[in-house]
Amino acid sequence: MKIVIAPDSFKESLTAAQAAAAICRGFAQIWPQADYVCVPMADGGEGTAAALVAACGGHWAEATVDDPLGRTVNARYGVLPDGSAVMEMAEASGLHLLAPSERQPLHTSSYGTGQLLAAALARGAKQIILGIGGSATNDGGAGMAQALGIRLLDAQGRDLPRGGAALAQLARIDTSGSLPALAGAHIRVACDVTNPLTGTHGASAVFGPQKGATPAMVAQLDAALSHFADVLATAGLPDVRQQAGSGAAGGLGFGLRAFLGAELQPGIEHIMAATALPDKIAGADLVITGEGRMDGQTAFGKVPLGVLRAAQQHGVPVIALAGSVGSDVHTLYAHGFSAIFPTVAAAAPLAEVLAAAEANLERTARQVAAVWQLGRNLHR
Amino acid sequence: MKIVIAPDSFKESLTAAQAAAAICRGFAQIWPQADYVCVPMADGGEGTAAALVAACGGHWAEATVDDPLGRTVNARYGVLPDGSAVMEMAEASGLHLLAPSERQPLHTSSYGTGQLLAAALARGAKQIILGIGGSATNDGGAGMAQALGIRLLDAQGRDLPRGGAALAQLARIDTSGSLPALAGAHIRVACDVTNPLTGTHGASAVFGPQKGATPAMVAQLDAALSHFADVLATAGLPDVRQQAGSGAAGGLGFGLRAFLGAELQPGIEHIMAATALPDKIAGADLVITGEGRMDGQTAFGKVPLGVLRAAQQHGVPVIALAGSVGSDVHTLYAHGFSAIFPTVAAAAPLAEVLAAAEANLERTARQVAAVWQLGRNLHR
Repeated sequence: MKIVIAPDSFKESLTAAQAAAAICRGFAQIWPQADYVCVPMADGGEGTAAALVAACGGHWAEATVDDPLGRTVNARYGVLPDGSAVMEMAEASGLHLLAPSERQPLHTSSYGTGQLLAAALARGAKQIILGIGGSATNDGGAGMAQALGIRLLDAQGRDLPRGGAALAQLARIDTSGSLPALAGAHIRVACDVTNPLTGTHGASAVFGPQKGATPAMVAQLDAALSHFADVLATAGLPDVRQQAGSGAAGGLGFGLRAFLGAELQPGIEHIMAATALPDKIAGADLVITGEGRMDGQTAFGKVPLGVLRAAQQHGVPVIALAGSVGSDVHTLYAHGFSAIFPTVAAAAPLAEVLAAAEANLERTARQVAAVWQLGRNLHR
Repeated sequence: MKIVIAPDSFKESLTAAQAAAAICRGFAQIWPQADYVCVPMADGGEGTAAALVAACGGHWAEATVDDPLGRTVNARYGVLPDGSAVMEMAEASGLHLLAPSERQPLHTSSYGTGQLLAAALARGAKQIILGIGGSATNDGGAGMAQALGIRLLDAQGRDLPRGGAALAQLARIDTSGSLPALAGAHIRVACDVTNPLTGTHGASAVFGPQKGATPAMVAQLDAALSHFADVLATAGLPDVRQQAGSGAAGGLGFGLRAFLGAELQPGIEHIMAATALPDKIAGADLVITGEGRMDGQTAFGKVPLGVLRAAQQHGVPVIALAGSVGSDVHTLYAHGFSAIFPTVAAAAPLAEVLAAAEANLERTARQVAAVWQLGRNLHR
């Protein structure tokens, strides 16, 4: 009997590792002899590094980098047993690092993210997984490039100051000083948005306002990023501005592709590859996944659906456990979930429900295991 | 494949019949070919008559009777296919029939309950199941007896007025005019309380206050009931004042026993007998029960535990579905429930949860059925 337990985190209550452990404890009350494989998952957003460190048995490293406004901040990243690094750009360049009054999208820079990459490269990482949600920046990844030794110069040959607005002055680039370690590195970016770099669906128009951009700033930044892309194309770098995801994280997706040849994929794909989830599912009798809430939206690229797809490849049934479910949760059956259970125990204030999340999850897993066992006994 | 579905009502949201139907619909989504036997249950309290009418395929009858203060009220009772009647004393003599200012425990009478019994006897009922929860009365069943033709007389040979206080004047009884139909009738009383008629655990002391009795009234009523019991014993009727349940419903339990030879049993026992639940469970593959809330208290005589006991006699596993569960619900596993699932979908206000009760119950039943099926497939 082999049971794979691969939940996402339960937002506001449990990390993915805690959730997996609670499910495992509940199941083991009924099936103490089963072989349990806990694979904490993530969607490429917050918690991705932690999930991979937990799933793969990695450890944490830390680097001192610049925050979006150039202040010092300690940013951590995970180091997996195979030497690859897993990091989240929000650690260095996240909106959460700024007070609301400090949101200055014309000047915020992804420089710290470049420093974080450099730190991992200096440690010898050849593979880097980078989650790019939650950014405070709108600089097309210019700061990231600068931190890696790529020079962005104005018509007078001076280095541009940091930030998206300054890109309007970009005349040429100089990649001759870029970090040598970049050559042998493979950067894989976890990205779930499909926006292009510029235009009405671009980084500035769609994500700029939440970072503090006024309509005038949006126009200014969109033009600057467009000019940035023009100069890079002229310099012979690939013109990836229209590709899906180039507009992610204030255009960092664009910069990662153009400068580093990074590969953007939905977060769940990276996570599944990094955790070898499909291999672990092979030969399993049951897969259990879940997240804090499941409803019709879960069908659009969340962890449980990714886990489901992997399990379907191997013909293994999937049961999902969720903190709560929406009234449209039944629409998920058609995708192939065998069953989906909310874990909430009673009508209660949210804070109370969140506090009981771990006990409720363990209890629900125990119930599911018991019914599964009943079914098996039926035809024995 | 035979599945017995025997839930209690879900208080404030679903009748037992609605709950059973919702569970059946959910299960049938996964097991459309199974043989479903829906047996709506009750605990002898509110909803008992409705559950039995639904479970046995009975119909309703109505009688015009006196309420606790002698006003006219229409009271309904169920008639089952075998001709037996099922009624609730609260229909005629319930506290809910009085405004708070009308609670007069010295004078309220169970007369209407006697009229309701008389109506069923007049219809030819030989078996009557009577639920006695929710009474407004504290008259030892004196009014009930009066309505059935039994005379309660004072020292001057005058009929006593109604109500518990008047029993202090009781000098003798005259049963010569009692309804002839009583002789051939069997009255079975659903009663879950164990209080004796009088004393510190008696009807007046324990239940009097909630019916409006002050401490002085409690003393007066307790003395009157004690005198009532003395006179009956002197008249040669069985002295049942100390028996468990004689203090139920303001002493109606006592009166039913002493005057009518009624048999008091926990409600669930009557219901299981009337619905032939044990026979229906024989040969079943699974029993599903449930109620609005399950927690450690469920172990004390509630419907799910009664259903569990019946199923255990036949070695059939039991899964329970509850609107909500308490944090001590795990204590019920030891009694033998295979699994217990709450049906609530999310942290939400109680009114919202109650409104969604039916959909949540059906959804949960569907999930359980799916996991049960998965288990069966496991070793095919």
